[in-house]
Amino acid sequence: MTYMVEKLSEEKVFKDPVHRYVHVRDRAIWDLVGTKEFQRLRRIKQLGTTFLTFHGAEHSRFNHSLGVYEIVRRIIDDVFDGRPEWDNRDRLLTLCAALLHDLGHGPFSHAFEKVFDFDHEDFTRAIILGDTEVNKVLKNVSPEFPEKVAEVIAKTSEKKLVVSLISSQIDADRMDYLQRDAYFTGVSYGQFDMERILRVMRPREEQVVIKKSGMHAVEDYIMSRYQMYWQVYFHPVSRSAEVILTKILHRAKQLYKDNYAFKHEPQHFISFFSETENVTLEDYLKLDEAVIMFYFQIWQNEADPILSDLCRRFVNRNLFKYAEFDPAKEYKKLAELNGLFLKAGIDPDYYLVVDSSSDLPYDFYRPGEEEERLPIHLLMKNGELRELSRESEIVDAISGKRRTDHKLYYPADFLADESNAKDIKKQIRTLLE
Amino acid sequence: MTYMVEKLSEEKVFKDPVHRYVHVRDRAIWDLVGTKEFQRLRRIKQLGTTFLTFHGAEHSRFNHSLGVYEIVRRIIDDVFDGRPEWDNRDRLLTLCAALLHDLGHGPFSHAFEKVFDFDHEDFTRAIILGDTEVNKVLKNVSPEFPEKVAEVIAKTSEKKLVVSLISSQIDADRMDYLQRDAYFTGVSYGQFDMERILRVMRPREEQVVIKKSGMHAVEDYIMSRYQMYWQVYFHPVSRSAEVILTKILHRAKQLYKDNYAFKHEPQHFISFFSETENVTLEDYLKLDEAVIMFYFQIWQNEADPILSDLCRRFVNRNLFKYAEFDPAKEYKKLAELNGLFLKAGIDPDYYLVVDSSSDLPYDFYRPGEEEERLPIHLLMKNGELRELSRESEIVDAISGKRRTDHKLYYPADFLADESNAKDIKKQIRTLLE
Amino acid sequence: MTYMVEKLSEEKVFKDPVHRYVHVRDRAIWDLVGTKEFQRLRRIKQLGTTFLTFHGAEHSRFNHSLGVYEIVRRIIDDVFDGRPEWDNRDRLLTLCAALLHDLGHGPFSHAFEKVFDFDHEDFTRAIILGDTEVNKVLKNVSPEFPEKVAEVIAKTSEKKLVVSLISSQIDADRMDYLQRDAYFTGVSYGQFDMERILRVMRPREEQVVIKKSGMHAVEDYIMSRYQMYWQVYFHPVSRSAEVILTKILHRAKQLYKDNYAFKHEPQHFISFFSETENVTLEDYLKLDEAVIMFYFQIWQNEADPILSDLCRRFVNRNLFKYAEFDPAKEYKKLAELNGLFLKAGIDPDYYLVVDSSSDLPYDFYRPGEEEERLPIHLLMKNGELRELSRESEIVDAISGKRRTDHKLYYPADFLADESNAKDIKKQIRTLLE
Amino acid sequence: MTYMVEKLSEEKVFKDPVHRYVHVRDRAIWDLVGTKEFQRLRRIKQLGTTFLTFHGAEHSRFNHSLGVYEIVRRIIDDVFDGRPEWDNRDRLLTLCAALLHDLGHGPFSHAFEKVFDFDHEDFTRAIILGDTEVNKVLKNVSPEFPEKVAEVIAKTSEKKLVVSLISSQIDADRMDYLQRDAYFTGVSYGQFDMERILRVMRPREEQVVIKKSGMHAVEDYIMSRYQMYWQVYFHPVSRSAEVILTKILHRAKQLYKDNYAFKHEPQHFISFFSETENVTLEDYLKLDEAVIMFYFQIWQNEADPILSDLCRRFVNRNLFKYAEFDPAKEYKKLAELNGLFLKAGIDPDYYLVVDSSSDLPYDFYRPGEEEERLPIHLLMKNGELRELSRESEIVDAISGKRRTDHKLYYPADFLADESNAKDIKKQIRTLLE
Repeated sequence: MTYMVEKLSEEKVFKDPVHRYVHVRDRAIWDLVGTKEFQRLRRIKQLGTTFLTFHGAEHSRFNHSLGVYEIVRRIIDDVFDGRPEWDNRDRLLTLCAALLHDLGHGPFSHAFEKVFDFDHEDFTRAIILGDTEVNKVLKNVSPEFPEKVAEVIAKTSEKKLVVSLISSQIDADRMDYLQRDAYFTGVSYGQFDMERILRVMRPREEQVVIKKSGMHAVEDYIMSRYQMYWQVYFHPVSRSAEVILTKILHRAKQLYKDNYAFKHEPQHFISFFSETENVTLEDYLKLDEAVIMFYFQIWQNEADPILSDLCRRFVNRNLFKYAEFDPAKEYKKLAELNGLFLKAGIDPDYYLVVDSSSDLPYDFYRPGEEEERLPIHLLMKNGELRELSRESEIVDAISGKRRTDHKLYYPADFLADESNAKDIKKQIRTLLE
Repeated sequence: MTYMVEKLSEEKVFKDPVHRYVHVRDRAIWDLVGTKEFQRLRRIKQLGTTFLTFHGAEHSRFNHSLGVYEIVRRIIDDVFDGRPEWDNRDRLLTLCAALLHDLGHGPFSHAFEKVFDFDHEDFTRAIILGDTEVNKVLKNVSPEFPEKVAEVIAKTSEKKLVVSLISSQIDADRMDYLQRDAYFTGVSYGQFDMERILRVMRPREEQVVIKKSGMHAVEDYIMSRYQMYWQVYFHPVSRSAEVILTKILHRAKQLYKDNYAFKHEPQHFISFFSETENVTLEDYLKLDEAVIMFYFQIWQNEADPILSDLCRRFVNRNLFKYAEFDPAKEYKKLAELNGLFLKAGIDPDYYLVVDSSSDLPYDFYRPGEEEERLPIHLLMKNGELRELSRESEIVDAISGKRRTDHKLYYPADFLADESNAKDIKKQIRTLLE
Repeated sequence: MTYMVEKLSEEKVFKDPVHRYVHVRDRAIWDLVGTKEFQRLRRIKQLGTTFLTFHGAEHSRFNHSLGVYEIVRRIIDDVFDGRPEWDNRDRLLTLCAALLHDLGHGPFSHAFEKVFDFDHEDFTRAIILGDTEVNKVLKNVSPEFPEKVAEVIAKTSEKKLVVSLISSQIDADRMDYLQRDAYFTGVSYGQFDMERILRVMRPREEQVVIKKSGMHAVEDYIMSRYQMYWQVYFHPVSRSAEVILTKILHRAKQLYKDNYAFKHEPQHFISFFSETENVTLEDYLKLDEAVIMFYFQIWQNEADPILSDLCRRFVNRNLFKYAEFDPAKEYKKLAELNGLFLKAGIDPDYYLVVDSSSDLPYDFYRPGEEEERLPIHLLMKNGELRELSRESEIVDAISGKRRTDHKLYYPADFLADESNAKDIKKQIRTLLE
Repeated sequence: MTYMVEKLSEEKVFKDPVHRYVHVRDRAIWDLVGTKEFQRLRRIKQLGTTFLTFHGAEHSRFNHSLGVYEIVRRIIDDVFDGRPEWDNRDRLLTLCAALLHDLGHGPFSHAFEKVFDFDHEDFTRAIILGDTEVNKVLKNVSPEFPEKVAEVIAKTSEKKLVVSLISSQIDADRMDYLQRDAYFTGVSYGQFDMERILRVMRPREEQVVIKKSGMHAVEDYIMSRYQMYWQVYFHPVSRSAEVILTKILHRAKQLYKDNYAFKHEPQHFISFFSETENVTLEDYLKLDEAVIMFYFQIWQNEADPILSDLCRRFVNRNLFKYAEFDPAKEYKKLAELNGLFLKAGIDPDYYLVVDSSSDLPYDFYRPGEEEERLPIHLLMKNGELRELSRESEIVDAISGKRRTDHKLYYPADFLADESNAKDIKKQIRTLLE
């Protein structure tokens, strides 16, 4: 129990461009930051391929993880502490879960998980419970502490209030990434008045709630999130890079299965290429974006023309172009294009790709639906709770409205090159316009 | 000549967090940004190891290069254009030199150049003049254009005004990096009123000069630079990482020379380890920070205890501690420490390192001195030019005053481990305190 | 015609916290800023009584007018200039109309216009066309120039594009005040990416339109406007001060009509108190907020208890409290309260006030409606124009939805004072809770 | 004693553009802000005539006073609380002194004090100790409390640490005004890393000291202060307005003494015009900038040509021009100009004015000197204190160096008007160039 409340002899700070300073007083937090599993997050970009569209977006998940911790720390120490609904014995648990919530993210997570069919959350759990430096630090608090932290991150903990601080429709995770990603990309959309939201947050048994007087700040936050999704996260150029990245991984995996002779043994990938179940925690932790980029660089010189072409595209930012695409109406056109690509000698499996992005800006609770989402509740003057969209016209107007965007990606340079298959390429270009 | 003035059909912009937008209208600039040699700058951090101290400082030289270009573009298009002292035929030359001025930087340049004894400026020249995509674009302007651009960057060009925009005591390079590094680290020191400085810049044959009315903004800029050097660039923790990085490269080179059997052939390094003259442009361009980090990661498992220890330190940010050190007075103590380290079985060549940082905030011209620096000139109301420190008391007070800082770096964890050589380590610790 | 294009020998700038600098090159603009009618705007606050809620909101209409000018200047010089749809001969006309659009505003305009029943736009016109310094400057351009400027401001000009830059649902006026009022109050709601909006504005014969690619920035701007209305402009505390201000003016006017003997002749008000038609331009220009505050201060010592009480409240910020009020349901309660106030000896005409605020965040065109509003049009890739709410789900969701808020204002301190009418006051308090 | 520690049922905040929010928990602070004497500070600009140069600088002393309070509150609650050197029983005393330190400032203080020969600090004391609402609130704490607060503000208190928080070379007053004035003017010079300075402040018996690790932040603060003085506070255009303002007051006073018949009795000024000793607290509190501006406006129509001309200049911002002036070398020229002005019929007492500004950026202690200044002390790692300029080269370089600037102000328009005294005016113009 002593380690649980052990303080550093003097507060330490990290200079942070978003929150000015990140403050650390707890020995356990300081020790967690120093573990090699947490330091590994420095080698994983927060926004994957987005830096190819917004050149400032080169920041890492290390950055973001500290930010989420700092927001949670401020909520607990500046707003919740002393209120009867808050049990301060949950403090360290909450801080650790905040700091470690993204611990299992791998390089370019989204593409990686899709191709190799796993979930980074399983690895978060594995790192926290496995034979790691992080686990050692957490066990210093108490033998069951790692499990408790893992449960909060997995949202299976019975401490619903703690869970809601880290994963809900208005949590510290979102509040940090919206501001941080806005800061590093340089767009203004991600700004909202977090100071005000923090001031009006109140603990309740089931979740954090928001005093009614802060409703407009929450509206602004929801609009920020909406704008960031469509302006930054789903930017068609970043998605082009993501498409190429995914196809590189697919191709390499396929070649491996086909016993292709790589010039340079893809040692770090082997367990991923065979069966995901075989991937050990050690294998996983060795993979970071430097390693990925190393392989992409050397694969530029591989004999396989598809692998080398795709790698050159990614490394040198020679991306696919895109056209709007409506799957409901244009599936026939897609089939036609597929045929033409084959005829032109351009493998459509790698070079004609539909990518879809979809977001639900806010939702109230719809039990039984695929992805149940805990709604935001406002705390009225009379103590009653009311679901946000019942009070806010703006939120009501967009609540539950899913928006989806489909695009068709292809290598425009291949189609422009008329040294062969001139007529077919012309047909393709006409169809794509 | 047409390519020289060819414009894009519509202006393109890059969203930039420091300058809001970087504007591109010239076809040649757009094409240069798209070359693989320029894209490579994305894989080289602007501030080397500084991200280990200031976690926001993960931005690349790609970022900075666009920023320098944008500042120069604004000076030319918004301030110089139309003034008789400015020849607008130098516009594209200046823009290209601004964009490409850091093109030859390698990964963690500072350490790299020291260990392998070369100058990144030679590689900048080599990329511009060699068989590269950059060279092709520049030659489209005119056959001599690459050479002209290289001369501006090398400061050998006869166009002194153009040179001074990119390399002088108040140039676009410094104005961008001070602001950019401040933005990404989150410190406030790098801020100064660049808008004002741009407005008061005037072209003269020999150099850009500053209208007297802008003197205070220039003072502020010089103080910003001073503060950034001591607060950020020379931060003792970043220097610790730099020391370790340097020692890793030294060790690997030494092992290679000693025919050590690396588990994984250090293919990308071989020409560097043998003779720098052997390094080809191709070898050089393959090296980026992803590659370096890949090797550091796998070298953690090398048999050589020094190489693996140093790599683990760098990758996991387990750095050396430091003590103040005065070489003039304490050289005997250093010799003594050296002896004690040897006795304790800790190789002082790798684990007891003096690092010195030194800066001259501003200097007027001192002919014949090692590093001649062109002073900043103020343009007085009567048209006369006066050297800045003659007008500004603040600048006069710090002009020519070199400040140097020496620190002694060592692995505190080794010295704390008392499983062996207990007494000697105690002696060492006493000497270091 | 020469004066129309006359430039200053060197560009002048005003340091502006919102736009960094306001740039002036035209002699006519410089001369207009120097007129006493324009300088008078320094003595009229941009946000009336808002400074009593947000203490930073002490900025004047002088500030804002320069800001609107600067935005229009940037649109013309940086975006429109050179495009075939823009006739640069309208440049000075547009700049002058932008600079002068608020010229006729009086002190605390809103309350003033209501009590004395006039429209500041009539005075804008009167100043531009009357015997004023502003008129002299404008006539220097051409004899008809003042009339043309007045027509643009009055929206009767046939130059619809020019009008739309200054008065439309996305004009320079709104873009400046949202950002400026956000800056001075310190709230974050008014921020949006104006740089982007400016870049995507395009001139069309009938109005300025927005390239489709900028739609999200426009959505963000509309949400900013919505938030500023409800968070700042309609803040219930500022409205309380506005209610008191209005009642002071009512009371003073009433007393004057009743031949009350003021201790200090309200010389500056006399023409306003008698008949608005009698108010001369000279009378009007003499009234500024310093003059109003002077009278409010000395009226604190008037014998009339209502006038002196209301003035003390305004000067010392001892405002009315408020309760939510629904006129449709609670009109009977209001009547009851009225009766009780009379019984308690508190004049309900001055001390029981319903105030209503109402806003329509965006509207498409509904011909024949009271307030026809020109919708925002998006310029699609194929050159077609589409009304914003047909493309944007967010805007569609809030389009045409008027939101109204009613509050009941009363002096809580009077009701708490139980030295007389104790029971009635208790009844009133019960009704108000 | 209860009132001393009485807290509001819920924390109140003021939205502040500089500190985001000003937080109030103490009943006494809340009550003080509500007094009419404190509300009066809304009618007094923080920067006097500076708004005529920097149009954003329209903020009031009310703003600044809240800011100083907030900084002191943060030092006490976030940094000092819990440290043995700090006695938390001094908390409310310190907060009240911070809030009220500028309470006695009158309209355009600087000019006013000079002409009528008094010190606003005497009025601060008088308001705190006299029959005022402020005094009532303070007496609620304890009968001696008003006197104690007054002593801290007057620097005669024996609580030297408390005094140093509010008046020293690095106090909350300066830290607020530098940032606030920078914010409202829009210049960047006033920015420094206050967050860092607050974090490294430590209480000592005699004064607040700064941990050595924060030295660079303090250097930056001192440079900010230096730049703000010369860029903003001593701006020659604001000084021109100040010169005219001073001359208006002189002239009106002179006319009053000469029994001039004012069209409108200058009632608010009478006690000031006769003998300063006669000025009652009531007279003083009635004077604010609205009142001054009211008189200046009506005096534009006075018969006295000097008074009406000067008032028109001030109201309409038609200021004096200036020339550099060196009193040591040019006193003869000044005498000559004086004679020529007389000949030209332009009264040199009002129209030929030398204005001098002088500042000492930082000083160490020089006992016995006119203005003894407590130096800033650094707290070294070993617990020793060292005076700042002994550690900082930058501060040492400027320490104790007084800089003075003299300018000669005159009405250029009078000299350009050649309808009379043509030759003499030509001579004057030649001398002035």
